[in-house]
Order: sequence, then structure tokens, then C-alpha cells
Amino acid sequence: MSIHSLNSFFEPKGVAILGARRSPGFGYGIPLFLQSQGWGDRIFLVNPAGGELHGQRVYKSLRDVSAPVDLAIVIVPAEAVPAVMEEIGESGIKSVIVESAGFAEIGEKGRALQERIRAIAIRYRMRAIGPNCVGVVNTRNRFASVELLDESMNPGPLSIIAQSGVFGNILLDHLPQYRLFISKAITLGNRADVDENDSLEYLGKDPSTKVIMLYLEGAADGRRLLETLGHVTLQKPVLILKSGRTAPGKQATASHTGSMSGEDEIYRGIFAQTGAIRAESLSHLIDLARVFSTQQRLKGNRLGIITTSGSLGALTTDMAVSAGLTVPPLSSSTVDQVRAMAPDWMNVRNPLDIGPSATFSRALPLLMADPEIDMVIAVMVIPYAVVRQFRFVGFTVKEWFGDISAVRSQYPDKPLVGVVVGHPEFVNEMNFLCGPSVPVFTSPESAARAMAALWHYSRGFQ
Amino acid sequence: MSIHSLNSFFEPKGVAILGARRSPGFGYGIPLFLQSQGWGDRIFLVNPAGGELHGQRVYKSLRDVSAPVDLAIVIVPAEAVPAVMEEIGESGIKSVIVESAGFAEIGEKGRALQERIRAIAIRYRMRAIGPNCVGVVNTRNRFASVELLDESMNPGPLSIIAQSGVFGNILLDHLPQYRLFISKAITLGNRADVDENDSLEYLGKDPSTKVIMLYLEGAADGRRLLETLGHVTLQKPVLILKSGRTAPGKQATASHTGSMSGEDEIYRGIFAQTGAIRAESLSHLIDLARVFSTQQRLKGNRLGIITTSGSLGALTTDMAVSAGLTVPPLSSSTVDQVRAMAPDWMNVRNPLDIGPSATFSRALPLLMADPEIDMVIAVMVIPYAVVRQFRFVGFTVKEWFGDISAVRSQYPDKPLVGVVVGHPEFVNEMNFLCGPSVPVFTSPESAARAMAALWHYSRGFQ
Repeated sequence: MSIHSLNSFFEPKGVAILGARRSPGFGYGIPLFLQSQGWGDRIFLVNPAGGELHGQRVYKSLRDVSAPVDLAIVIVPAEAVPAVMEEIGESGIKSVIVESAGFAEIGEKGRALQERIRAIAIRYRMRAIGPNCVGVVNTRNRFASVELLDESMNPGPLSIIAQSGVFGNILLDHLPQYRLFISKAITLGNRADVDENDSLEYLGKDPSTKVIMLYLEGAADGRRLLETLGHVTLQKPVLILKSGRTAPGKQATASHTGSMSGEDEIYRGIFAQTGAIRAESLSHLIDLARVFSTQQRLKGNRLGIITTSGSLGALTTDMAVSAGLTVPPLSSSTVDQVRAMAPDWMNVRNPLDIGPSATFSRALPLLMADPEIDMVIAVMVIPYAVVRQFRFVGFTVKEWFGDISAVRSQYPDKPLVGVVVGHPEFVNEMNFLCGPSVPVFTSPESAARAMAALWHYSRGFQ
Repeated sequence: MSIHSLNSFFEPKGVAILGARRSPGFGYGIPLFLQSQGWGDRIFLVNPAGGELHGQRVYKSLRDVSAPVDLAIVIVPAEAVPAVMEEIGESGIKSVIVESAGFAEIGEKGRALQERIRAIAIRYRMRAIGPNCVGVVNTRNRFASVELLDESMNPGPLSIIAQSGVFGNILLDHLPQYRLFISKAITLGNRADVDENDSLEYLGKDPSTKVIMLYLEGAADGRRLLETLGHVTLQKPVLILKSGRTAPGKQATASHTGSMSGEDEIYRGIFAQTGAIRAESLSHLIDLARVFSTQQRLKGNRLGIITTSGSLGALTTDMAVSAGLTVPPLSSSTVDQVRAMAPDWMNVRNPLDIGPSATFSRALPLLMADPEIDMVIAVMVIPYAVVRQFRFVGFTVKEWFGDISAVRSQYPDKPLVGVVVGHPEFVNEMNFLCGPSVPVFTSPESAARAMAALWHYSRGFQ
């Protein structure tokens, strides 16, 4: 297998789309989407039927395309893929995305077909992504081999590797609502050639990728995964959601992307040894991505908690301590300063339960500045009836809680996340107040658990 | 301590509000709220200053109120509470809610004050809720001793016991967005008298309460909690979120509602022995409430999964199996019927990954009818670009997925929950399609874990 870079997949100069067609489906939608993203003059539609599509010429053969093309997207039926791959090979194109399904995932016959396209790729020294995938996304140049919504094309620091095409696609729909925006995405499908290791290597070196998210059913090569993760996690965090933990789960993946998912203990070992961060669930994966993509590495495990609800403060503490953080006393200087402004009934300790006292906006910066605290979780809840009373007298949540975004900017090296529970309108208002760099969670345990994961990752760099 | 019923708290005939006042706060807001709920003619405002508030007379003393009153709400400052309690006792009212803070939660001085009001309650054979709480809610008669939004006053099958007033209030704001509506709520505060056991007994017998949710920091009486839970869980499920699991978490609760939270192993033992269901986090508590309040008890642990994404099917399987469910083969009759309509590439097994085949609406009822399956999780995802194409050609998600609510009604005894991941508009559409009786989760593991908890509870009844 050739080892040249994956660069042409993400930064193609010209793109041939084999299987462009007038009937609904990828062959119709992808050219239209790429036109809308400004790629109209760099895409070349190919279909033996010829004619015109979306106002562009449809070439009967790749040979008729004279413009420079360095990437081919294949969306023809499975049985036609080998011939098309030969045509691509002959043309000198070295990067191919095979989106067509009907290969190893459907059994013996498909597996044989997949072996054929793999052999063709090797013969022509091409790199191939797929089959049974939706290819790649690069938000910086607005290139994607899959139709996406505009909001999913907003650039961000997160890159995604997903073994499954549909799941990758769904994630791209799902993430923007959590303010998670991506740099690049790659869906691997059946991995006839390009696998998670190639992808990790590439994204590990990609300067616009700050955090990598990986959905894996089974490793293409366990030993290489161990090596790859070992050095990529030194560059940036790798968050992994791995299915096939249980025997029935493994069977489910086998009939899906045709991969064997292997023994879960082996993966646990690989992840623990390399510092890769394993998510326990899809929602946990998203929690982790939100904290890792917005917060700096931690210098220690000392958590400060400020809260308007004693209960939520206690729940935060329980999860934090269970997950390996400490909730130590505040420094004596912080205690003195808080005490000076606090009402008599307030217990000045950590967690700092300020109750209904209007001291949040003054107390939060003190916690952020405390040299004996490495990170802060701010639990910000008020009954909505009270919020409405505030509003009635012209008082805003910003006046109550202070300018959280500004506090965030003032202490850029100290991780800060919020917890807000309550009426959706209040949660929205608080999200806005916290800004894009302070992720807001609606469950205190989620915030604490994600912070603890950030600590476990950061510890490797102490 | 007297043992008469808590009925007057939830179904009062007349309510005295001691501490009604013109300045912002509970004393101003609660009378206004009760007026808006239709209680204007059954509330009696009391304040030594007299005068008028919200168009109602303010009595200078409770003695001046001649109408029948069987519940008093106390919102005067802490130091004034004992005298007010005496006044209430003299008047013959047997039920009192003390919302005022500044008791055991603030230390020694407050603890002494709390002992005094407890002694007064005993002397007059009154039952008292609080202090340091927001009292009760009953949506059926629209009575609440706390200001709530109208949506929180919609009646539902869930009842809440919260040790903390603020947290209870926040939960009432938070739950409607998950379609969780309540029958009754009670916040205990410092528990000078009424505690979680009294509340569990009452709600256990309450015909409009189907599921009880309990937030507990520490048990008032461990032995009694064991007994109470033992028989209440035979009537209905009790979902418990318990803080103070760790030593620092325990300290946090001590300075909050002034309660000792005790050793976590003891609670684990109590919950396991009685069949109470413990939530691991606030979001887990909500997941559990959604499934327990909409689904019937399970007859067995055999889960059928239908999915449009192999990956999400595998993740569902992993969590289900880890949590004690099985994902067995479908019955041969179901397999035959699905195979008859399925395309060649489809693996007819459990999980049933239907991929892009348009067979969901026909396959789901077959799984629901399968006698070898006790419950179904339906994973329903489509890339949003495809949903928009559907819409463009006049095709709806209902045509694709079928009438899920109707399927739910056709098999009322077989639990069914959905998993939908993706664009928020798609998730909303699917929530609507699934209707109020099929909770939709956005993480497959949440759905599987909540179903497994339903099985663990149901097993006690086999």
C-alpha cells in the first residue's frame, strides 16, 4: 500500500465525481452541494450517459476531463466500482473516495469485490477511503464529499474520524447545537485502504485540529493503533467512543462495517497506555469534546466550586472526587476576601455555596485567581419565577452573575465550566452569558466528569 | 410528634400566609401566584402592619381571620418564627410550612431556633414542613406554596420529594422540557418535623402519583427509610438521587441543609434491598423518570433493537447487555416476515439494522408483536440533508418511520423508547412523531440504561 499523504482528500485541486446523476441521491446532491460551497469550477461530473446536470457538463468518461484532477469521488453501484477504479487509476488520480455500499458489510460476495478494489488501488498506488462511507469534510476550504447543512460547515477546532459513514454524518448534524464546530472529518467505512491510523497521523499533524474525536468499532491493526495513539496523544487529545464492548455488541458491528471489534480489555489497555480518553457513551463523548476543545490543559487537580444551590454543589463534589479531583479549602486570602463581602449566614468554604446572596459576580473572579485552585466549576441556578421578577424590575442575569465571558478572558489558563439547570429560556440566557469558551452543562456530574478527564489527560504532561 | 396525615398540605381548605408583604420576595410573590391559580378566596394574608396587598385585606393577626384555615405558610424572618408558630398553634391550625431560612443550616444558633419551633409543633400537635424550604405543590388543584411557571403546573404522573427547596424549585422549572409533569412536590428543607419517610408514605398512597422521585442528602432515620422504601416500592417505583457519596460531598451537604449524609455503603444496601432505583446523576434521574413514567413494567429482559444506523445499534447493544438485558435473536416468524420485505443486503437479526431501506414503518410493528421480545428500542436517525430532500419531494418523516404513536397504542404493554441523534429540528420532529408515550433520547446508552433499570425494578414483581 502506498503511503503518500492524505492531503489531496482534504485539499483537492480538482475533483471528479463518478456517478453524478439526475435521480435523487448522492450522485445528484453532492455536485449541487459542492457548487453551493464555491467548488463549481473545480468539480467534474462523470457519467457514461453524458448530458448536463445543475448547469454543468457531464463527461461521458474521465478521459474527457482535461483540467487537473487529484481526487475522485465514486458513487456508482458496487458492481461497477472495479471498472471505475481502473478508469481512475489509468487517469493518474492518486486519491479516491468510494462511497458506494455493498462490500464487506454484506458478506462473502461483497468481501471479494472489496478485495478487488483494494488490489486495484495498490496496483495504481492510489489511496482509497471507503467503500461504504461518506468520505471527508474540510470546513476551512468548504470542501466536503457529503451534503451538509451550512452550520456544520462553520470552522472549529474539532476533527472527527468515524468508522461509519452514517454515524459520522449524523454527528455533523448533531454537534453544532453544542457549539462544537469541526475542522476536518473523515468517515472510514470498510477501510479497504485508509484506516484510523492514517487518519490519526494526518490529523495529529494538522495545525487547525486541536482535538480529535474517534468513533471506532474495531482496530484495523491493534499494534499500529497503540503506536499511533502513543505519539498523537502527545500532540493533542484523542477522544474515543468504541463500540463492540460486549459479545452481542461485537456481533452487531461485524454485520455493519464488516469489522471484528476484538476483546475490550485489549482496547482498554491500549487507551490507558497511550493517554487516549475513552468516552462511556455518546453523550459523554460530546461532554468531553466541549471541555477539551475550549479549555487549556490543567496544571493540577484542585477544583473550586461556586454554586447558588447547595445540592448541586454537593452533587458536583461527589462526582469530582469519585473521578480523581480534589475539592480543597480555598486559600486563606480568598477566604478573607469572600468573607469581607459575604452575609453572616454564608459558609465560606469549597464548594462556595453563595445561596441567594448577590455575591456571585464578585466571588467568581476570586476563585479564578486563587493560586490553590486549578480549575473552577460554576453552578448557576435561580428559580425562573425569580428570573422573571428580576426582569420585571429591569435586572438581568448578567447583573446577577457578572460578565462570565470577561472573567474567562481574564484567566485564560484556568479551566472554567458552567452548570445551569432550569427553564430552557434561563439555560439559553446563561449559555449566551457564558460565551463560547465556557461550556455549560445541564447535569453537574457531566461537568465534573469531563473536568476530571481533562485532568487525567493533562497529568501526562506534568 | 403527631402522626396525622399530610393531606392538609396538599388539599387545604383555607391558607393563611404569615409574612405577606409589599416588598419583593416570597411574601409578595406567593399571594399573587395563588391568586392567579384561583386561590384568591381561600388565602388569608397576615402581617402586623395590616393594610392591603394585591387587592386583598392584610390581617394584623391570625386571630382576625374568621374563615376556616387548615394550613399556614410562614415567610417571616427566622427570629420571628417561634412567635408566629405559637400564634398558629393557638389558632388551632394543624399544618404549617416554614419557608424561612436561618436555622440548622447556619450553625449552632440556628439549630437552637429550629429546636424551639420543633418543640412548639409538638406541643400543639401540628405537622410542620421545613424550615428552609419552599413547601409543596399539587397540580391537580393548582395549589403551590412557591411561585411556578404555568407549564410546571400541568398535571402529570410524577411526584417529587426534594430535601432542598431551591433544588426542588429548579427541578420544577427543568422537567417540563422533558415532558415530565408532576402530580405533587414536597421540599423538606431542614426537616424539623416532616421528613422523606412521611412524604414517601403519603405519595405511596396517592392515587395520582405513579412514580416518585426523591432527592436526598441524608436519611432522617435510616431504619425507617429501609422500612418505608420496602413497602412503597411495592406500590410504585421510587427513583433516588443521593448526594454525599464521598467525604467532601458529605461535608458539602452538612453545611447546606444541616444534615449528616452517612456512609454511602449503607444507602447502597438500603436501596438494593428495597428495590429503590438509584440514579447516578441528575441527567440519569431524568432519564429514569421519563421511562418509568411512560412505560409499563417489563415481563422479561429481552430487548429488540431496530435501527437505521449500525453504529448506534451496536452502542445500544453494548450498554443494554452491560446493564443486564439480553439482545436475543428475533422469533423465526418475525425473521421470516422481515426477510420477505427486506432488500438482499439487509441482515435480518437483532439489532435489526435496516440501513437506508424504507422498511422501518413495517418492521417496527413486527418487533413490537414478537413474543420473544419484551421491549423495543428504536434508533431513528437520518442525515438532515436527506430529511430536507424528503421534504422537497413532499415526503415526511412520518411516511418514513410510520406512525410511532399509533404503534405505541397498539402494543400498550410492551415498553418502547426512541433514540434520535442529529439536527435539533429533526430531533423535534421525531419527538412530535413519537408522542408523549415514547420518550426519545439523544444518546443510545441513556435509553438502554433506563430500560435496564426498568427491568431491574420489574423483576421484583415476577
